[in-house]
Parts: sequence; C-alpha cells; structure tokens
Amino acid sequence: MTGKLYGLGLGPGDPDLITLKAHRILRVVPVIAWPAPDTGPSFARAIAAPHLPGGQTEIPIVVPMRTERFPARDVYDKASGEIAAHLDAGRDVAVLCEGDPFFYGSFMYVFERLAGQYPTEVVPGVSSMMAAASAAGRPLAARNDVLSVVPGPLGDEELTNRFNAADALAIIKIGRHFKRLRALIEKLNLLPHAIYVERVSLDAERLMPLADVPEDTAPYFSMILIYKGGEDWIQKLPGSKP
Amino acid sequence: MTGKLYGLGLGPGDPDLITLKAHRILRVVPVIAWPAPDTGPSFARAIAAPHLPGGQTEIPIVVPMRTERFPARDVYDKASGEIAAHLDAGRDVAVLCEGDPFFYGSFMYVFERLAGQYPTEVVPGVSSMMAAASAAGRPLAARNDVLSVVPGPLGDEELTNRFNAADALAIIKIGRHFKRLRALIEKLNLLPHAIYVERVSLDAERLMPLADVPEDTAPYFSMILIYKGGEDWIQKLPGSKP
Repeated sequence: MTGKLYGLGLGPGDPDLITLKAHRILRVVPVIAWPAPDTGPSFARAIAAPHLPGGQTEIPIVVPMRTERFPARDVYDKASGEIAAHLDAGRDVAVLCEGDPFFYGSFMYVFERLAGQYPTEVVPGVSSMMAAASAAGRPLAARNDVLSVVPGPLGDEELTNRFNAADALAIIKIGRHFKRLRALIEKLNLLPHAIYVERVSLDAERLMPLADVPEDTAPYFSMILIYKGGEDWIQKLPGSKP
Repeated sequence: MTGKLYGLGLGPGDPDLITLKAHRILRVVPVIAWPAPDTGPSFARAIAAPHLPGGQTEIPIVVPMRTERFPARDVYDKASGEIAAHLDAGRDVAVLCEGDPFFYGSFMYVFERLAGQYPTEVVPGVSSMMAAASAAGRPLAARNDVLSVVPGPLGDEELTNRFNAADALAIIKIGRHFKRLRALIEKLNLLPHAIYVERVSLDAERLMPLADVPEDTAPYFSMILIYKGGEDWIQKLPGSKP
C-alpha cells in the first residue's frame, strides 16, 4: 500500500481560515512538504504551524526567486522524488499550499509529476482573492458581472484590453510591476475604482484606495481589486478592517 | 451595545470544507439567517447543519426564483429588518452563505442594507470554483494565465468575446442556459477543453467532460471549467473524484 498525496489548501494566512478538513489532515499526516523562497521563510508552513502536533518529517521545497517565468525544474524533480519515496514506503504526504492549491499555486508542479502514480487528493482552500474582498467590505463580483483575474507581469497592451473588458478585476502577482500597473490603471480612469490589499487576513494587513499607496513597489502577497461602478464602496473604505 | 453582523462563508457543500473560524462562530452565534429558494430547502443551512448546537433563532430569507435579474427587494428589506432587530437587542447574527459571501453571493443584499449601521465582519469561504478545480484534478489557472469568471445568462456575442479572450474560464449560473452554452462552446472549438462539474464536494457530485453530459439542462449548483491547452487533463479525467 502506497501513501496518499494531499495538496492542502491552507487559506490566505490567518490560521483560523483553514478548513476543518485541512486541519484534520495536518493533525495526523506523518510527512509535510512546503514551498519556500530562497530569500526567506515559508508562508505556507507559517499558516500551518499553530496546527502541527510536532514530530512530522518535513520536506522543504526551496524555490529560487530569480526565475520568474519558469518553475525551477530541478527543485520540483528533487522534491517530488523525496515525496515519492515516502509514498512508496506507505506514508501519506501533505504538500502545504497558501490559498488554494489550484489557483495559481505551485502545487501543480508536484501534482503533474506524481498524481498519475499515487492516490491524490486536492483539498481546496480559501483564496486570498476572496479574503481580500471580505476585508475590503466589497463584493468581488455580483449578478452577471464578468470577473477577470489578471497577472501583473502581462504587457501593457494585453492588460489594457483585459482592464477594459471586465466588470471586476483582481490583479495578482503585482510585486515589482506595481508602479507600471498603477500608472496604467490611472491612464484608463480606473483609479477611483481600485483597492490595494496587502497581506490579507494577517496582523500586518494593509488595505487602502490604490491612489493612496505611498510606495512604488508591493510585496509578493498583495493584490489590486477593481470593481467598476464601485466608487461609492471605495469612498466608504476606512483604510482598515471593517 | 449592538450585536455584530457576520457574513459567513460556508464553502462549496461538504461540511468539512468550512473554516475553523466559521465553525467557531456557528457554535456560539444566537441568531442565524439563511437564504432559501421558494422551491426547496436552503443549501447554506444544510452545510451548516452538522455544526449547529441547536437552539438558535433562525431567520429564513425565502427568495422567489422567478425573478432572475433583480433581487427581491421586499424580501431583503424584510429580512434585514428582522436581523436589525436582533442586532439592536445586542444579539450577534450570522448570515449563512454557500461558498464565499462576496463571490456572486446574495449576502451583498443584506450587507448593503446593514453594514453601515452595525459592526460587520465577512468571513471568506472556499468557493465552489476552487472546489471544482480540485475535484477535476486540474489547475484552475496557472503562471500568467488570465482567468475569467463568466455568468451563463450573458448573450452569445458577449460570451464569444469572453471565451476567446481568456486562457481559463469558469462559467457559472448555467442552469437553463446549459444547452445554448454547450452549443456555443462547441462552435468555438472549446469543447475538448471543457469540464462539467455538478454539486461539487457533495456525495451527489458529478464530474465529466462537457461533451459527455447527457442532459440538456443543468442544476443551479453546477459549473463549466475551460482551460485552453488542457486537453491532456480532460482525457485523463476518470469521470469521478481522483
């Protein structure tokens, strides 16, 4: 009997926003694997930390942050090999994922290597996009709105088309593209509709109209929400949690 | 001291997919309100049921299903009035929401009536869109994909533009539009990329290539996921949970 592979969605950051199912698995799984940048600690492991009973075997998946476009193949090959060895020995392995595993998550790189060979279950999680709308006190989308999720690294022309076409937008992966994105949003007259959310659901959460952000860069865990026709919501924003 | 209003995201249907936070609130809140169609039971209440200690005051929000385009104003006015009376008396009230409260949720109609007057907290939940991708064993979106969430009631021309523009699509509110949507998806040569998911995370879950669905209509709690370039995933689909 081989072990089972879990892709475990852990939600946006607040350890209280993990699901009962993920919590139950975390309490008993003998092996956990978690992604971490080579520049700092693992966010996914930090979300799980208060729930871990201790004594698990841990497999860090340390991803170099230099390469934005392509996943580090060697890193995922090696980690998948380590995970497979535990599965072959009959031990379940949970790969910890911030947010939801299949919403722009790196879990897919482990999944595509192992899911065909081992019993696999993906446990969905609360996405930071949903948490950001909750924190902003504003619907992400409603009625017959079209909502588009748009990665910030895309070029200005494509972004312009996307921004013009959607009723509601979540712009992700903004980081070093922040200044360019804000300029584009302003040029398209969407600035009055735009909310900036950083480190949502954590103590360090920041939330304000995009127009009021003093910095020219943003951390990895940040997002811009745009809801056309939503000026009235923006004006009510207290700049903090409701 | 007035009570606090909660918009409580309860996830896609499996009671195990609610968050620790929503669970804790359900265990202690003295008043719950929940939406139900005038044609049947409340899905949100069914998700919460295993977690309720019993003895709460309950406020049904019975929504007529005839009117698709506009929310039933009188229904939300009346329900909000009842909720407000409890809040005025110092009792917390949790409005139960399937999925996430601010992702196309009807909670916004209560929120817009009461949030300015009472302390309010929205607790995000796992969306059925995330759960559908998990069940399908296929990323919803990855890398620099643009993901668009598109309501089925939109017209064919607008749908065509949306379908052509996005890398990944989640088509929601398909119900009686199912036949028209499938014909359009076939016309645009997207049928090999399309997965149909119904009642995700419940025992009654159905999941199959859209091309294989025998019916010409779909229930309210169903969705179509399209991931261009995803033929390989579709072909691997077992037609059931991984």
